[in-house]
Amino acid sequence: MTIQEILSRCDHTLLKQTAVWKDIQAVIDDGIKYRTASACIPPVFVKRAAEYAAGRLPICTVIGFPNGYSTAAAKVFEARDAIANGASEIDMVMDIAALKAGNDAFVLAEIKRVREACGEHILKVIIETCLLSRDEKLRACSIVSSSGADYIKTSTGFSLGGATREDVKLLRSNCAEHVKVKAAGGIADLKDAEEFIELGADRLGTSRIVKAVKDLESKWQIHANV
Amino acid sequence: MTIQEILSRCDHTLLKQTAVWKDIQAVIDDGIKYRTASACIPPVFVKRAAEYAAGRLPICTVIGFPNGYSTAAAKVFEARDAIANGASEIDMVMDIAALKAGNDAFVLAEIKRVREACGEHILKVIIETCLLSRDEKLRACSIVSSSGADYIKTSTGFSLGGATREDVKLLRSNCAEHVKVKAAGGIADLKDAEEFIELGADRLGTSRIVKAVKDLESKWQIHANV
Repeated sequence: MTIQEILSRCDHTLLKQTAVWKDIQAVIDDGIKYRTASACIPPVFVKRAAEYAAGRLPICTVIGFPNGYSTAAAKVFEARDAIANGASEIDMVMDIAALKAGNDAFVLAEIKRVREACGEHILKVIIETCLLSRDEKLRACSIVSSSGADYIKTSTGFSLGGATREDVKLLRSNCAEHVKVKAAGGIADLKDAEEFIELGADRLGTSRIVKAVKDLESKWQIHANV
Repeated sequence: MTIQEILSRCDHTLLKQTAVWKDIQAVIDDGIKYRTASACIPPVFVKRAAEYAAGRLPICTVIGFPNGYSTAAAKVFEARDAIANGASEIDMVMDIAALKAGNDAFVLAEIKRVREACGEHILKVIIETCLLSRDEKLRACSIVSSSGADYIKTSTGFSLGGATREDVKLLRSNCAEHVKVKAAGGIADLKDAEEFIELGADRLGTSRIVKAVKDLESKWQIHANV
């Protein structure tokens, strides 16, 4: 696998509460330079980010994030608002409590409403694997497969843990073929990234891969992409 | 200070992502029984909670929570949605990044918009003290004092730390008199609660005080409120 293949699957991510515009701008600059899949940033920066990127990089943002317990109406509003502001990709957190309560129909209906609000844009559904039992993960796979969402995503990065190899395999084997897998959280280096991709992850949510590539470039005086 | 005086200042709180309706119901039951100021719960449960409480206990919820970086438009929508669903109190997270960037006018304008959306209902502004410098805390006090919000609140309980005695004193001394202080996170027991109130906290965001009172009751075979 080439470094560029890995980079092209990274949602280059900055979701810290304390990040200011110049930090976001640096993420976009790096995303453009290293040709990542997108820059994934907080909703409040989407408009400025989309104007700044000006079509050179897709802007991804998060809704119902990170706890997943805003109302369906609020998630729909947030999705529309983000797209109106220029977002191309929406990472929503599903209603974790509804899944735990066995209310799968509610979880599905909510995702479908957000799906509709997203139109042709990419929708990823974060299921927060670290909070789920095996049975809950399997039900989440089935729900996301029926929802019309483009991706199932492991983690927010704000809970007890990130993506594991086991979970990526589990999601890949139990989702419909048209559903792609995004692994987020805990992807430490290029070797990790390669492994997650080989296990079935189509996208990686991470800030560390661009950093790792920069370190490589600086150590060996090379250019990662040509 | 009596136990009932302490309980009457508690927003009895359950904001875990994994909490299901029966957990929320237990919080409301306890809030009613122990006459807390409110039950503070996730937005997705507000409608059912308000119907269940049926005027016996105010329902409080959170918006832009916990990261504070949803758009102002989304925060306004969430506030309206929560109030339409029966919430009496709204705890919003301010735009932390805008404060850090020195964009105080933006932070103020956003709170004013949410204030307007809340009508006569109580609005609390969470500034997340653990992420702020002393200067940033002082600017937040000044902004909240001009915003029309009812409360300044220390913490979400989802970041690096909760309320400290120093911060409660600082907020009390630097906010306008009409702004009350809510201390949230890290209030471990009744002694803590009493101290925070004596330092100037009008409300406490906590799940542990009701628990502490129950333990007292069970140990000494008493009833805390009559």
